[in-house]
Amino acid sequence: MKKQLNKKLSDKEAMALAIEEAQKGLGFVSPNPPVGCVLLNKNREFLSSGFYSHYGAIHAEIRALNKIKDKKLLEKAHLFVTLEPCFHFGQNPPCVNSLIKYPWASLTYGTEDPNPKTNRKSIKKLKSKGFKVKKTIFFEKKLQRLYEAFALNMKEKRAFFALKTASSLDGVTAFSHGESQWITNRESRDLAHKLRADFSAILIGVNTFLQDNPRLNCRRKAKKNITNKVIVLDPSGKSFSLIERSHLARVRPMKDIYIVSQRKPKTKYPFQLIHLSDYPFNLKELSYILYNKNISSVLVEGGAETLSQFLEQKQAQRLYCFINPCLLGGKRGQYWTESLNIRGLSSKKQLKSVEILYLNEDLFVTGLVF
Amino acid sequence: MKKQLNKKLSDKEAMALAIEEAQKGLGFVSPNPPVGCVLLNKNREFLSSGFYSHYGAIHAEIRALNKIKDKKLLEKAHLFVTLEPCFHFGQNPPCVNSLIKYPWASLTYGTEDPNPKTNRKSIKKLKSKGFKVKKTIFFEKKLQRLYEAFALNMKEKRAFFALKTASSLDGVTAFSHGESQWITNRESRDLAHKLRADFSAILIGVNTFLQDNPRLNCRRKAKKNITNKVIVLDPSGKSFSLIERSHLARVRPMKDIYIVSQRKPKTKYPFQLIHLSDYPFNLKELSYILYNKNISSVLVEGGAETLSQFLEQKQAQRLYCFINPCLLGGKRGQYWTESLNIRGLSSKKQLKSVEILYLNEDLFVTGLVF
Repeated sequence: MKKQLNKKLSDKEAMALAIEEAQKGLGFVSPNPPVGCVLLNKNREFLSSGFYSHYGAIHAEIRALNKIKDKKLLEKAHLFVTLEPCFHFGQNPPCVNSLIKYPWASLTYGTEDPNPKTNRKSIKKLKSKGFKVKKTIFFEKKLQRLYEAFALNMKEKRAFFALKTASSLDGVTAFSHGESQWITNRESRDLAHKLRADFSAILIGVNTFLQDNPRLNCRRKAKKNITNKVIVLDPSGKSFSLIERSHLARVRPMKDIYIVSQRKPKTKYPFQLIHLSDYPFNLKELSYILYNKNISSVLVEGGAETLSQFLEQKQAQRLYCFINPCLLGGKRGQYWTESLNIRGLSSKKQLKSVEILYLNEDLFVTGLVF
Repeated sequence: MKKQLNKKLSDKEAMALAIEEAQKGLGFVSPNPPVGCVLLNKNREFLSSGFYSHYGAIHAEIRALNKIKDKKLLEKAHLFVTLEPCFHFGQNPPCVNSLIKYPWASLTYGTEDPNPKTNRKSIKKLKSKGFKVKKTIFFEKKLQRLYEAFALNMKEKRAFFALKTASSLDGVTAFSHGESQWITNRESRDLAHKLRADFSAILIGVNTFLQDNPRLNCRRKAKKNITNKVIVLDPSGKSFSLIERSHLARVRPMKDIYIVSQRKPKTKYPFQLIHLSDYPFNLKELSYILYNKNISSVLVEGGAETLSQFLEQKQAQRLYCFINPCLLGGKRGQYWTESLNIRGLSSKKQLKSVEILYLNEDLFVTGLVF
């Protein structure tokens, strides 16, 4: 959406713009949540916007406020913010204390802050001061996606896991003779790269590492400074001796590469080792370990064995499927769920809050996993 | 859409209504095509509508015209018809001869009649008489679907084959222990029943017949009089002795049940036998045979082996997928394309003109197969 001074915006448009602002921070603000803010004057005309740009930066609301020199413009103004303003002292003073100084006609927020230090306290405080405070009725699914990782982080002090797949309409992700590139189209691959920016780390199994030697970076202009951390699940340590010369290490510092293994290298090693004794790895245990290492959200990109492990252990919170509307067949094709063991219909993994995008001819399907 | 006398309609609304009218005839008009017609007066207000209701009935245009007592209302009126009006004498005289008698301001058609007896001839005739004739710019995919079977019938004198599947998001259609019912939701199953009404016959493999003992009828109120013909692919004749006591025979006369087999029963038999000597059956050959038996379009409902045969022999013109957004996994689940043999990405079966509907939480994906 184009930001145009004095342009009249509906509630829906203002919140849409606030969400767009918030998304600019994705990839830079972790472990804090992204936030966007839009201010309209008493006639609902656009005044300013702001977003939380990087960890430790000025908060979105204050950034939007600071852009307004003549504070008289805030008389009966309307504020839209994607997340409940903060109540607590962190690297910034509480936003709610700044906000109550102005004569707002209304304050609209996207979702309550799941952080227990704030959760609903700012809303209550603003209401007690006589402000009209309301939760937006728009973009429920988008806001859910924006804050689901942060909500899990706050509530359970562990990392959020999402799975990403690229396949044909019949679920085939590669051929047994190894041909796997380009099942999905350019638009899909572009969005897949953008998606990486939204996560603290990308996770793969060691077989994917050995077969594909991937980079797993974010080849998207707007987010080109981002190189995600990488996690490799490697029970027997096959990657130990190879990792330094891999593509993974070519596009990021070694300190950003985590290998989860039952083994320990015998000599000094340059990567980060997460030692877990049991295999299959206890992925819930891993989620706590990662969160303590400041990895708050993880995109699991494969292969099939690894994806199935997350689903079977109920450690996949969201699924992102990129689907090319073609059929590849199971005689020579490999299905991405072929190692997934589900006992029967009553145990199926159901997607909820499903959203679908068309990416040229491809389909992008995402939903929460239950 | 509600038909309301004197209600002003846009070009798009008028064609939408004409398509709705045409669809009422689906299941009753075969081997003729469904047609709908809408008439607006000079101020573009609704006058009347008509559809081709059953094989041999009055044509849609004439039915719409007949509803108008005072023919003065047709002064500078606008006609919308889903298919080019007919040019030839069949069971009705040519519609184009009736239409040129009235002082139309415009005639808009959905698609050219693929029947060589008419193809573009009526359009040319109307234009030569000075009428403003145009093809609609709306509903390209819908109109394509409405006439694709008829177009193949006319051009190649053979039956049209479409495939229907119901599966999870990962392409699983049943469990190896036999549990297969209700993967998709009520809305999907409702639409799947409605879909049957659009085809002359439903086709299954003999294993599906033996395992499921299905009825394959159209359990939809609006089309409840329709009991499709049924075709069973049964190379070794396992169904011969069972068919009379099956559910298939309970809901339709035996003369509407076709068994395609390499074998011939030794005694007199009550069903229709199509004897083909080679197996796998030559499905293109079958398409010619069926067309000659007045079966112009066939919905192939499974199982997996049968669906794959149609895809591999390039005899699947369209695919209808009902998808519940859940994962069932390949360890115990059966993928509907598991017997499909595709050599590599360059041989993939690509869907074009893809359309997607949401059926409550289910997805309905359809497209032409290339």
